[in-house]
Amino acid sequence: MTGVLKPVQVRRPNRAVTLTTSLDVFVDLPPDQKGSHLSRNLEAINEVVDGSVREPVGSLEELVETIARSLLKRHDYATTSEVWATADYFLERTSPWGRTSLEPYRLVARANARRGERDVERSIGVEVVGMTACPCAMETVRDDLLKEHPEIARWPDGIPIITHNQRNRTTIILQEPPNHDVEADELIDLVEESLSAPTFGLLKRPDEGRLVEMAHRNPKFVEDVVRDLLERLLKRYPKMPDGTWVRVKSEAEESIHKHNAFAERSTTFGELRAM
Amino acid sequence: MTGVLKPVQVRRPNRAVTLTTSLDVFVDLPPDQKGSHLSRNLEAINEVVDGSVREPVGSLEELVETIARSLLKRHDYATTSEVWATADYFLERTSPWGRTSLEPYRLVARANARRGERDVERSIGVEVVGMTACPCAMETVRDDLLKEHPEIARWPDGIPIITHNQRNRTTIILQEPPNHDVEADELIDLVEESLSAPTFGLLKRPDEGRLVEMAHRNPKFVEDVVRDLLERLLKRYPKMPDGTWVRVKSEAEESIHKHNAFAERSTTFGELRAM
Amino acid sequence: MTGVLKPVQVRRPNRAVTLTTSLDVFVDLPPDQKGSHLSRNLEAINEVVDGSVREPVGSLEELVETIARSLLKRHDYATTSEVWATADYFLERTSPWGRTSLEPYRLVARANARRGERDVERSIGVEVVGMTACPCAMETVRDDLLKEHPEIARWPDGIPIITHNQRNRTTIILQEPPNHDVEADELIDLVEESLSAPTFGLLKRPDEGRLVEMAHRNPKFVEDVVRDLLERLLKRYPKMPDGTWVRVKSEAEESIHKHNAFAERSTTFGELRAM
Amino acid sequence: MTGVLKPVQVRRPNRAVTLTTSLDVFVDLPPDQKGSHLSRNLEAINEVVDGSVREPVGSLEELVETIARSLLKRHDYATTSEVWATADYFLERTSPWGRTSLEPYRLVARANARRGERDVERSIGVEVVGMTACPCAMETVRDDLLKEHPEIARWPDGIPIITHNQRNRTTIILQEPPNHDVEADELIDLVEESLSAPTFGLLKRPDEGRLVEMAHRNPKFVEDVVRDLLERLLKRYPKMPDGTWVRVKSEAEESIHKHNAFAERSTTFGELRAM
Repeated sequence: MTGVLKPVQVRRPNRAVTLTTSLDVFVDLPPDQKGSHLSRNLEAINEVVDGSVREPVGSLEELVETIARSLLKRHDYATTSEVWATADYFLERTSPWGRTSLEPYRLVARANARRGERDVERSIGVEVVGMTACPCAMETVRDDLLKEHPEIARWPDGIPIITHNQRNRTTIILQEPPNHDVEADELIDLVEESLSAPTFGLLKRPDEGRLVEMAHRNPKFVEDVVRDLLERLLKRYPKMPDGTWVRVKSEAEESIHKHNAFAERSTTFGELRAM
Repeated sequence: MTGVLKPVQVRRPNRAVTLTTSLDVFVDLPPDQKGSHLSRNLEAINEVVDGSVREPVGSLEELVETIARSLLKRHDYATTSEVWATADYFLERTSPWGRTSLEPYRLVARANARRGERDVERSIGVEVVGMTACPCAMETVRDDLLKEHPEIARWPDGIPIITHNQRNRTTIILQEPPNHDVEADELIDLVEESLSAPTFGLLKRPDEGRLVEMAHRNPKFVEDVVRDLLERLLKRYPKMPDGTWVRVKSEAEESIHKHNAFAERSTTFGELRAM
Repeated sequence: MTGVLKPVQVRRPNRAVTLTTSLDVFVDLPPDQKGSHLSRNLEAINEVVDGSVREPVGSLEELVETIARSLLKRHDYATTSEVWATADYFLERTSPWGRTSLEPYRLVARANARRGERDVERSIGVEVVGMTACPCAMETVRDDLLKEHPEIARWPDGIPIITHNQRNRTTIILQEPPNHDVEADELIDLVEESLSAPTFGLLKRPDEGRLVEMAHRNPKFVEDVVRDLLERLLKRYPKMPDGTWVRVKSEAEESIHKHNAFAERSTTFGELRAM
Repeated sequence: MTGVLKPVQVRRPNRAVTLTTSLDVFVDLPPDQKGSHLSRNLEAINEVVDGSVREPVGSLEELVETIARSLLKRHDYATTSEVWATADYFLERTSPWGRTSLEPYRLVARANARRGERDVERSIGVEVVGMTACPCAMETVRDDLLKEHPEIARWPDGIPIITHNQRNRTTIILQEPPNHDVEADELIDLVEESLSAPTFGLLKRPDEGRLVEMAHRNPKFVEDVVRDLLERLLKRYPKMPDGTWVRVKSEAEESIHKHNAFAERSTTFGELRAM
């Protein structure tokens, strides 16, 4: 069943928020069974969603885990269940120049349950929109400029050189092993730190100039974003088991092209440590 | 009826192209009639589409006009008909640095027919993806830079100053009065000239730097794009009647924000002349 | 500015809900002004959104009106402002067979403010997904069946005859004159009553059969949906001024075609009364 | 690189067609390399696309294979390349009632090349929109009807019983081993045969009734569609190697719900034979 839309009450530090959540739920079917009982999926979802009104769920990951467990109970013929949830989510952000505003992100959560196993495999993810400035075009322009204005090279902190910059959409999803809590807010921080710059809804004129300079002082390919984010992740979660799986994607809506630049890496914490 | 997908053979200078065309067709319904005969819409469409295999149509505008006329014939209870067509379209473009490649655009055409009137009102439009560089952030950064490096002001051609730049989507649609031929290829040219820079699929490293510099030498708000495009239009079609209607929209997928900047103007050639 | 995403606290009967709201805001620009100050739009939005956390707004219409007024104050060069808001929205619905579940809808609100005018023009709208069953195919099948099984005609309540049925998306938006309160929940009711049948997330097996029969006892073209909805509207709001504007669209994602059937009417309460 | 749009000339039996093709191309990157040379991707694409104007490519699969090989040549640091192509595609279909019209489908092709391996792994796929009628609701309604009208059971060919029916979107993609030609047109046939009924753009009134009856005589869950399509595939390609991979998805845009029903199976010809 795909595209089930529900409002879910989720507990956040110091408050509860309502997330408009889109759910996809699946169970496997034995070869001798014609079809699955779809209404049981809705019952499993409604039970948790209705319950969240009285007592908010701890997180989207907790939500999908509870639904995945409930699916196995309700479909006694199924041996596995899988649940995905995605939702718009907002964080109050203060720009480096002191202005505070709510910024939109997206949360992703997945749970896979197997009959007979105590633990449900949970994944947690976020999608963040930010900004990348291209290092390659910057270098080309710098080389051209230096020919005409060699004094640029002598300026103490350099001069920020023009390049193309654009909207970037970076997603991370990783396994959340039992007893290894990962916070969506932290993942959002890690992604924003890995971009050329985060973006903000509210920028007064001087802020705009400073954000532009900030991004140009920190140019990044999509490949850089993926690499830097994985490095930050490894540092932030030093105790994560080697087998823990993670996937990062970064897509730049190139301002100089009509197509996008894209980089992706699927790996484990073990592989990241071995590098 | 909306979303009818058909391949249409269209004549272009020196060749015929196949456009994967999405069609929306409408007729009005008198108060005493329960419903419209939908299959007649398909017959009107198929007749023209099938015919285009043997003899390509002259343009999307000709296609929608023919269908609009045919709808009034087939629905004798209707007094008006309206047909919209949109299609991906490609032009061979050579970048200023000599590389040739096919660039994607979108064509739009509309026809409104009224029973008893000889002429069908036709509109022609295009959607172009290009690039804008923000003049405002550039000015802020320049002012900051000049405080530390006043010599910049003395350089003969200035130095290109960083700013945010982004993918921009600009659309124009205008009435095409009888005997006033408008060519979609020309509209595409006019839009690309009104942006900070056109974009290209294939850019080798030095080209990239030059395109970036070109855009930064020509910074534009979305409001500038709309204004400049309307000015160019007026110059290009000096004999267009005063009553001819035109609508221009420009949307910048801001690299420094998660939302878009947007400007739009609906006007007539008469109003444009009066300014 | 388009696509600004914000969480908004809205007061509903007996509760407050958080709506993930997408906002488009516009102001006009005098000919002598190069560009609009975009950050002021965000300030106007943030003020209301932040305020709604402490004191929920009364409705999306109130939200857009407040923002539209604030825009005129902040952009002193502008003579008009326009604000659109859309949001997913949920209502607890009990199916005719007694099962209760949250069903998703969409809310739409628009405000147009003009400098020097006391009242802001407000519009309120909803989008509802439901079901239509085609009366035309049903009649054709019935005629065929009667030839072979004439006894069908003699059965007291008839026998429900097969036809194609499908997902239907119907939208209504209307002006809300000052002192004429329109409730989104009521509009949703009116739309659902105008379809062949509303749809429900949770249907146990016997409910499914009954919903299918309900829709087949009430077959509707998209034209019927538009007509019936306008009639219901007129009855529900008998005191609405003649000049009040309304637009209804109904689109059926035809199960027997790859394209959609579509009907639309834009009219006023005065015209509706004159019919 | 994602979303590169190009017109491609493809050879079909007795003709050449132009496909508006969207391409995603990827290469892997060694740990010590900062970024990939994106312009080389465009050169690889352009070479094939431009060539197709003079000499149409044999198929989308051939196109992606050629690009995948070319990518490995151009990026000497890469060890693998992957290319995806999707395109709208049209086939002339004659309805069982004799009306001929062009119906839209979508083609998918994928190629994975590995340095040092002679063969490129190719996959071929299609997406087909058709119709499913629900067997479960039909049975519930039948049971209810039989209580009141037991004579229905005695009619020789039964009477078609109402149910919900809807637009269904089914996709298949499978490996195409070297020397095992799979034709997209055949896959489209297999999918349409596995649905309750194919759909047609042009249906005159009597045809509509017959298509509705055809679908109701052949009710299907999404699970049935997946199962039946895999069975048909096995029969159609008896010599396909055991290791050949295939994935089928079927999604019903349920007329009685706001969400979709969905079934998927990923398997091999070996597994299919073992069942």
